[in-house]
Amino acid sequence: MSGFPHGSSGAGNPYGRPPAGQPYYGPPSAYGGPSQYGSPFASLVPSTFPPGTDPNVVACFQASDQDGSGFIDDYELQRALSSYNQSFSMRTVHLLMYLFTSSNTRKIGPKEFTSLFYSLQNWRNIFERFDRDRSGKIDSSELREALLSMGYAVSPVVLDLLVSKFDKTGGKNRAIEYDNFIECCLTVKGLTEKFKEKDTSYSGSATFSYESFMLTVLPFLIA
Amino acid sequence: MSGFPHGSSGAGNPYGRPPAGQPYYGPPSAYGGPSQYGSPFASLVPSTFPPGTDPNVVACFQASDQDGSGFIDDYELQRALSSYNQSFSMRTVHLLMYLFTSSNTRKIGPKEFTSLFYSLQNWRNIFERFDRDRSGKIDSSELREALLSMGYAVSPVVLDLLVSKFDKTGGKNRAIEYDNFIECCLTVKGLTEKFKEKDTSYSGSATFSYESFMLTVLPFLIA
Ligand SMILES: [Ca+2]
Ligand SMILES: [Ca+2]
Repeated sequence: MSGFPHGSSGAGNPYGRPPAGQPYYGPPSAYGGPSQYGSPFASLVPSTFPPGTDPNVVACFQASDQDGSGFIDDYELQRALSSYNQSFSMRTVHLLMYLFTSSNTRKIGPKEFTSLFYSLQNWRNIFERFDRDRSGKIDSSELREALLSMGYAVSPVVLDLLVSKFDKTGGKNRAIEYDNFIECCLTVKGLTEKFKEKDTSYSGSATFSYESFMLTVLPFLIA
Repeated sequence: MSGFPHGSSGAGNPYGRPPAGQPYYGPPSAYGGPSQYGSPFASLVPSTFPPGTDPNVVACFQASDQDGSGFIDDYELQRALSSYNQSFSMRTVHLLMYLFTSSNTRKIGPKEFTSLFYSLQNWRNIFERFDRDRSGKIDSSELREALLSMGYAVSPVVLDLLVSKFDKTGGKNRAIEYDNFIECCLTVKGLTEKFKEKDTSYSGSATFSYESFMLTVLPFLIA
């Protein structure tokens, strides 16, 4: 199987460094908002590849769709993602599927697959670019810079918490492996977007009802 | 090893049913607030058993403390909890330790162990009482009633989300096993308490800064 994002593709990082003095999350335009994640019903109705989709993406989809159902399920996605020296935990796979389909259906069609493909390519580039010491892992200061490059300026306390949560290496020096780095980025991105939806005046604080708080947080708990 | 909460101990449920018309979380007094979880430094300084502690609790602590360190670590706690036909996932164990020590140190002393012991006894009673059909699992309507008895009235949408998140059985009929039930209760309790801390006027809505939002949510993500 070939074609899944797995190395330097030469594509630059599309997101600029955030301007000084901005609040603790990226500008509203940096990530394109919820539409990037597709329609809530996207995975119930067969979707099609966007016009002009790279043939590599189509080939990769077809190779991943082992039972030829027209959808990629969680096991198929895990296998496809794990094929380049990297294992992807089912947890990361489920979080990816949740965020790229806005649902719990756990299958993705061509359209969502395409946006997933490009996002992974982008994250792979970020991972490689910020793994300054080429250790194959992202440590605390590398993560700080990586998140900054995506428009997320997290505090030292949040940074520490992220590293302690997403470091599964068990090593003495805390560092995050590739699949957990993806999960970390997805979590910061997803929570920040949910927060921004409630922070309509960009004041840096957001008000939740108990219901909306629970519905915001629970999906991130166990994907 | 004997003595860890594992059946009907005859103790009644200390929490009354919430009054009609109350907001979507329990009354402030229902759970005794953060002090129940002990001091933030509790697990760094050796604690002692509270006066009058049941000798069964002391015996259970000593049996669990296999290396005699005076603390129970995560592996010791998992073994102790798993000894009655139940397996406890390390995730549940870590969430228990986080909430009962308010820290990530992953060891608990006598004092926190005692409050953990009684809480587990209470949850075990609730589990058995609300497992109406004696299936050994808690289904959606059983969970709704169990949470109500603890003072948490969650909406049908939140209830559905909880069941889909904490059902690890993979069965056709969704239901939650004992350790995941504990984790579910801990999550609802923990998130609700964090929400209440911000909802100082008991209005049913709470305002978070981005920093406090991230620091509130992240600890629940991957315990
Ligand atoms: Ca590195
Ligand atoms: Ca049942």
